[in-house]
Amino acid sequence: MSEKMQRIVLAARPVGSPKDSDFRFEEAAMPTAGAGELLCRTIYLSLDPYMRGRMDDKKSYAKPVALDGVMEGGTVSQVIASNNPEFAVGDIVVGRTGWQSHAVTNGRELRKVNAAIAPISTALGVLGMPGMTAYAGMRNIGQPKAGETVVVAAASGAVGAVVGQIAKIHGCRAVGVAGADEKCTYVTDSLGFDACLNHNDPELRRLLKDACPDGIDVYFENVAGKVLEAVIPRLNPFSRVPVCGLIAQYNATGLGDGQNMLPALMRQTLTNRILWRGFIVSDFWDQFPEFEVAMSDWIATGKVKYKEDRVSGLENAPHAFQGLLRGENFGKLVIQVGDDPTV
Amino acid sequence: MSEKMQRIVLAARPVGSPKDSDFRFEEAAMPTAGAGELLCRTIYLSLDPYMRGRMDDKKSYAKPVALDGVMEGGTVSQVIASNNPEFAVGDIVVGRTGWQSHAVTNGRELRKVNAAIAPISTALGVLGMPGMTAYAGMRNIGQPKAGETVVVAAASGAVGAVVGQIAKIHGCRAVGVAGADEKCTYVTDSLGFDACLNHNDPELRRLLKDACPDGIDVYFENVAGKVLEAVIPRLNPFSRVPVCGLIAQYNATGLGDGQNMLPALMRQTLTNRILWRGFIVSDFWDQFPEFEVAMSDWIATGKVKYKEDRVSGLENAPHAFQGLLRGENFGKLVIQVGDDPTV
Repeated sequence: MSEKMQRIVLAARPVGSPKDSDFRFEEAAMPTAGAGELLCRTIYLSLDPYMRGRMDDKKSYAKPVALDGVMEGGTVSQVIASNNPEFAVGDIVVGRTGWQSHAVTNGRELRKVNAAIAPISTALGVLGMPGMTAYAGMRNIGQPKAGETVVVAAASGAVGAVVGQIAKIHGCRAVGVAGADEKCTYVTDSLGFDACLNHNDPELRRLLKDACPDGIDVYFENVAGKVLEAVIPRLNPFSRVPVCGLIAQYNATGLGDGQNMLPALMRQTLTNRILWRGFIVSDFWDQFPEFEVAMSDWIATGKVKYKEDRVSGLENAPHAFQGLLRGENFGKLVIQVGDDPTV
Repeated sequence: MSEKMQRIVLAARPVGSPKDSDFRFEEAAMPTAGAGELLCRTIYLSLDPYMRGRMDDKKSYAKPVALDGVMEGGTVSQVIASNNPEFAVGDIVVGRTGWQSHAVTNGRELRKVNAAIAPISTALGVLGMPGMTAYAGMRNIGQPKAGETVVVAAASGAVGAVVGQIAKIHGCRAVGVAGADEKCTYVTDSLGFDACLNHNDPELRRLLKDACPDGIDVYFENVAGKVLEAVIPRLNPFSRVPVCGLIAQYNATGLGDGQNMLPALMRQTLTNRILWRGFIVSDFWDQFPEFEVAMSDWIATGKVKYKEDRVSGLENAPHAFQGLLRGENFGKLVIQVGDDPTV
């Protein structure tokens, strides 16, 4: 077959923020499905902050992407050839086939997507890994109770938007933090948060205090940096902090700036008996079925809304990813790699 | 009655480390028991690091001692007059009657001490608040499993000694940190820890690495400072950190020195899904009966040993307390205020 496929590989390990030359766009021969395998064409590629971690050759919870290896990523694809009886040509599947136009897989990590529930791209967002991250962190660690105050940063992003809406479903006050006034307006007016603060405001600490008159009971940590430092003194007795991401630190090359916050953190943790717990979504993957049932209902009944930021063309993924780490996306960032047959 | 009682009051709020002039020794008229009350004479007064926090006028989990008020503290006393049918003259009781020779109380916070189980002063140590602190932190947060590694600082102290011995009872490797070679020898040879490191050794980080070849699964935090900073990079996936005290910070007047450790802490917390949880012993006070049964058995069967550092004379309490914050005690620090009729 002379047809070509396209892919983006890791050309160099970034120092600090990734730049264009850390990625390489390649064409390669179209692969074919062997025994028990299937060939998929990518429709949507998810871009998520955790990918920055996979570009470093550091000990972490997952292996790094190899140099010259295809960048990892979640995808929604269509089966175009199948030697696997569990999948038929035409099936829409969600998996982790990476930053490429086509992929051969044995199907073990794939899950079929039901296009009747919601647009298939949501399998990468509100009905996929980011939505499940918000759900798992709140259900297992945040444990919001009616009347409590929940704070989340990156509040217009794929995880943060769901965190705040789950808080509202539980009868909590939801306070978001985002990086632009336009995002804040969306978070309050469309998503129904009680307040949303612009983290670029030099008065962030005071604004946070005013927005949380009864203190903070759950801080869903997904950014670190100055938002965390503003949150620490406002945490209530017996508050909970699910730690699921650190966008502001992902590009950090050295140790922290400024005064050492560790003593203040530990003092607060002891005095107010605060719980901090790191997690990644796969720690709670056995809860995916219950999440899917709950979230499908919340979407159907309008309790959870979502927004996508869609960019066309695999070749634009590196640039869009760099923007994601700077907070330039507005909604769940998805690359449209191929035609969506369901729309 | 012309008889006098003695007491030590808070003369001034300390700036940094407490000094002699922050305390005042006073004599006062002997109080008398009113209706429903009893008069106790203090036999033993417990000195504990948490008392430093009560000397500050800061928001914390407990109210500060008032200026010119009697310093707070746990005591073992003998009832010498009683208008309360639940207590008879001669009873030995444990309570919180403070840094004074005599106290009148309604008896509500008192508990009778059984001198047949162990020396009555242990109601302030291994069978009292410090022992219960170790027990509650390990049972509810540390949750040690056989084969894991447990690290605790202030390992010859009232809490740390029990933490490590509970770790051994659960089949863990117990690694202590203490402030003198003599203490380390006691911790390994008498208490049965697998290793104990001197925190004054400039090679503490390397020593800790060598002593924990399989990393750290539980770090029982009771000192903060450099021990914590050495521990952070060695914490294993899914490790647990009960945070029960911060001796090294209690005298701190400002923010932390050195580089900001917060980013490294959060990165570790996320990558290794670490649980940090602050607690104070009263959060788990409903578990005291089960603790008392377990600990009495461990003492009787020699699984838990203890050591007291006893100082005679109420007037010496301020000086002994200052030494405690510098780590100069060796074992549970107890002031003998009056005669012990059980020995």
